[in-house]
Amino acid sequence: MTAGELHAVDPRTGERLEPGYPVAGPDEIARACALAWEAFAEYRATGPKARAAFLDTVADRIEALGDALVARVMAETGLPRARVEGERARTTGQLRLFASVVRDGGWLGARIDPALPDRTPLPRPDLRQRRIPLGPVAVFAASNFPLAFSVAGGDTASALAAGAPVVVKAHPAHPGTSEMVGRAVREAVQEHGLPEGTFSVLLGHGHDLGTRLVTDPRIKAVGFTGSRGGGLSLVAAAAARPVPIPVYAEMSSVNPVFLLPGALRGSGAELGRAFAASLTTGAGQLCTSPGLVFALDGDGLDAFVDAASAAVAATPAAPMLTAGIRAAYDAGTVRMASAQGVTTLAQGTDDPSIAVACQPRLFLTDDATFLAEPFLQEEVFGAASLIVRVRDRERLGTIVQSLEGQLTATLHLAPDDPGDHALAAGLLPELELLAGRVLVNGWPTGVEVGHAVVHGGPHPATSAPATTSVGTRAIERFLRPVAYQDIPGDLLPEELRDGDPLGVRLRIDGVPGGGS
Amino acid sequence: MTAGELHAVDPRTGERLEPGYPVAGPDEIARACALAWEAFAEYRATGPKARAAFLDTVADRIEALGDALVARVMAETGLPRARVEGERARTTGQLRLFASVVRDGGWLGARIDPALPDRTPLPRPDLRQRRIPLGPVAVFAASNFPLAFSVAGGDTASALAAGAPVVVKAHPAHPGTSEMVGRAVREAVQEHGLPEGTFSVLLGHGHDLGTRLVTDPRIKAVGFTGSRGGGLSLVAAAAARPVPIPVYAEMSSVNPVFLLPGALRGSGAELGRAFAASLTTGAGQLCTSPGLVFALDGDGLDAFVDAASAAVAATPAAPMLTAGIRAAYDAGTVRMASAQGVTTLAQGTDDPSIAVACQPRLFLTDDATFLAEPFLQEEVFGAASLIVRVRDRERLGTIVQSLEGQLTATLHLAPDDPGDHALAAGLLPELELLAGRVLVNGWPTGVEVGHAVVHGGPHPATSAPATTSVGTRAIERFLRPVAYQDIPGDLLPEELRDGDPLGVRLRIDGVPGGGS
Repeated sequence: MTAGELHAVDPRTGERLEPGYPVAGPDEIARACALAWEAFAEYRATGPKARAAFLDTVADRIEALGDALVARVMAETGLPRARVEGERARTTGQLRLFASVVRDGGWLGARIDPALPDRTPLPRPDLRQRRIPLGPVAVFAASNFPLAFSVAGGDTASALAAGAPVVVKAHPAHPGTSEMVGRAVREAVQEHGLPEGTFSVLLGHGHDLGTRLVTDPRIKAVGFTGSRGGGLSLVAAAAARPVPIPVYAEMSSVNPVFLLPGALRGSGAELGRAFAASLTTGAGQLCTSPGLVFALDGDGLDAFVDAASAAVAATPAAPMLTAGIRAAYDAGTVRMASAQGVTTLAQGTDDPSIAVACQPRLFLTDDATFLAEPFLQEEVFGAASLIVRVRDRERLGTIVQSLEGQLTATLHLAPDDPGDHALAAGLLPELELLAGRVLVNGWPTGVEVGHAVVHGGPHPATSAPATTSVGTRAIERFLRPVAYQDIPGDLLPEELRDGDPLGVRLRIDGVPGGGS
Repeated sequence: MTAGELHAVDPRTGERLEPGYPVAGPDEIARACALAWEAFAEYRATGPKARAAFLDTVADRIEALGDALVARVMAETGLPRARVEGERARTTGQLRLFASVVRDGGWLGARIDPALPDRTPLPRPDLRQRRIPLGPVAVFAASNFPLAFSVAGGDTASALAAGAPVVVKAHPAHPGTSEMVGRAVREAVQEHGLPEGTFSVLLGHGHDLGTRLVTDPRIKAVGFTGSRGGGLSLVAAAAARPVPIPVYAEMSSVNPVFLLPGALRGSGAELGRAFAASLTTGAGQLCTSPGLVFALDGDGLDAFVDAASAAVAATPAAPMLTAGIRAAYDAGTVRMASAQGVTTLAQGTDDPSIAVACQPRLFLTDDATFLAEPFLQEEVFGAASLIVRVRDRERLGTIVQSLEGQLTATLHLAPDDPGDHALAAGLLPELELLAGRVLVNGWPTGVEVGHAVVHGGPHPATSAPATTSVGTRAIERFLRPVAYQDIPGDLLPEELRDGDPLGVRLRIDGVPGGGS
């Protein structure tokens, strides 16, 4: 009793791919949520070792899919082999990283304020604290990272690490990939004797599946990577529930790059080429693609513009993920190209052999035009960027104030140039208010998965600026603290018992044992 | 240019207190927000030592107000001296606790993933992370803790500790108290040479002031303690902003208590007296007042009911905070008393000499009535509680599933009774999903301020279940993480520089130095 079938399309050829995959209807959605809720008590009770071993097995099973997975991803997304293999390594790497996080136990934030029976005027009770998972999590897979932000991507890995069952809404652009990875996870669930509802994947189009998932009372949190419109509609649906739930939506960012005079003077052409390489990576279909460049007027700016233009013009067309993404890219670039005061600098070469192709675009404008046209800071998903000539530091300050929240903000400076140094010292405190990650002399594409990374930022980059969707802190999104007062030792959760039997580095009276 | 004056009323006498205090109009509100935003850059740049010293001075200045403050609080709230002095100690204690938190530096979550220039296929950049404050915070003071949850209460202390300027909306029931404490904080601001906008207090009635504050674009987060209706309306206003902001609202809780058969059998009467004492503390005007008691039918239950009834009947009337609170209490208790299946067990004695008095009320019903009437689990603010006779464990499970989110959940058990022990082992995992703090063999009133406490819980207890408004973790509400990639050493925030110059226990490659 499913709601029909869904086929992927190869964006390189435009051909429909076999087989069709069943689309989940209301009954399947309700069943997945019911199973997830049933599984919650048992799954969250797994100890650190068992849960970590499960995550490691998920990674092993994904690797065991071998080249069949890589070939299917390439067919469904048009992404090149090196990228797909790299993304697979990132995906299994972050599953194993979260296994190590689970084993470490610091994420529990376990702490004890011991009883003080003789305190006056009142004795102090024994208080202990740990973090527990919120409940089943709905994960909305992204189109542009068919492995790392999809069925067994970062949201899934961090939710499973937190002890939360996961119901994934697969992205309809890569159903075969989703089916293969989903099967690998389900096999790991079985191998570790976990309840069936620990993990499930639902496939479907559009809003109905998403809205049903987010409003199901058994779903307690949502992870989402996608468009601003999609993210905000889930946020609204979650807030309108009788019991609202958090939505961790990673949405929209143009990742501004700021070029200081010393950097331009010293290496304008080199920066132009490096910028074009970052912009055209993956046909620009990255959350961190540099969509805006602010360059302070002066020596080297022309060289930057010329080199970037030449590099973009020489960039061959590349497949985009879907015809819908291509249509939105066309609309966005046409709108930009036709805006008064905006010049088209360059367009990549065409390739008629690609059915759904992106020809990168580069535009130029001045600060006054940029400030007068708020739509110029809207994201155009794909390889399109706007260079803005900025008159002076004061105008740059006005522009920084006008920008929306971002995932990243990048500064290029000449390290030994006192002028750049002074400008950077003034700008960095403004940029850290604007973005989740601030870079110097690099490019925002390429996100490290580690302990110190932040993939997040103020609205509308995300709906939850205090969180990150990449890196070990991502687990915190699915947890909340609980305090235990005067609970008899044998009824306490094991990690909170005297003597730290699970080695989670219990913090006593605020004195760190190394937990968080 | 103010919007009139506001007078307090002594709830013991009903008399209007002098002097009148000016009410803030739109201009004052906008000015306070503008000053707070202006102050933000400088205030957040204060180092740990300077910021901690400022918080200590705030505590000193509040103490220096001496008995004049105690007398004014008593006049404006009707609370007894011992309670007011205790609350003052808690208030200064938590300011000093947050000073120690600031000095400790663990709250920064400072961490480094060092560069790996030789990594293949791509080198790893240098990534560092710390938490920064969100921006100016609006704090809505509560009526029932005129010091500890008011002008310089927990929300203010934790926001100032985080590096966030604070604009307080004072509670109109205690304007003189608010003025005195506000003056003490402003003097500390001046003494430490901090910008004027670091702290301000606005006084006003009702929704207009609150809505203006929450929708001002310069306000970046909100702390609130008060009613469910008030909290939810601020949450909605904040979510509807062009850039939504988090609202940390502590709202509504009936703090269910579960009495297991062994406990009742062994000490029913004793539990009844202790329960009545907790219920009538502060005329029941506490967020953690036990408004619902679920008792498993059996020996000792009658003794519990009789003893609790006798104790409540013998409790003298006590002043309530305001006539409005008293009116809501009357409406709630009348509604409960007139519900079919609910019996009024006891009512405290009257005291006509008190203008705004609470006579505690105790009610009794059975499980079927409770499950059939959802309004019976709504909070009646004040000393009113409902005892529910529960047929068996299965019915108790149904009841737990039916309850809304709570600040606390309490279990009474006989430690050496195997039956109670088995019941508790099954119930505790359900109760920790229900509440922010789970207690055994105690009473929920009385909240420790420390490292392990959680004063929070699922909706509608709070609007942000992953947080606490009491204890050291409260600082986390006003922070977000930022990652710094390849920033030259001299441009890095000092706490992230090599060698941990500020001693914040930098975490290197995930290996804990003890920070969070």
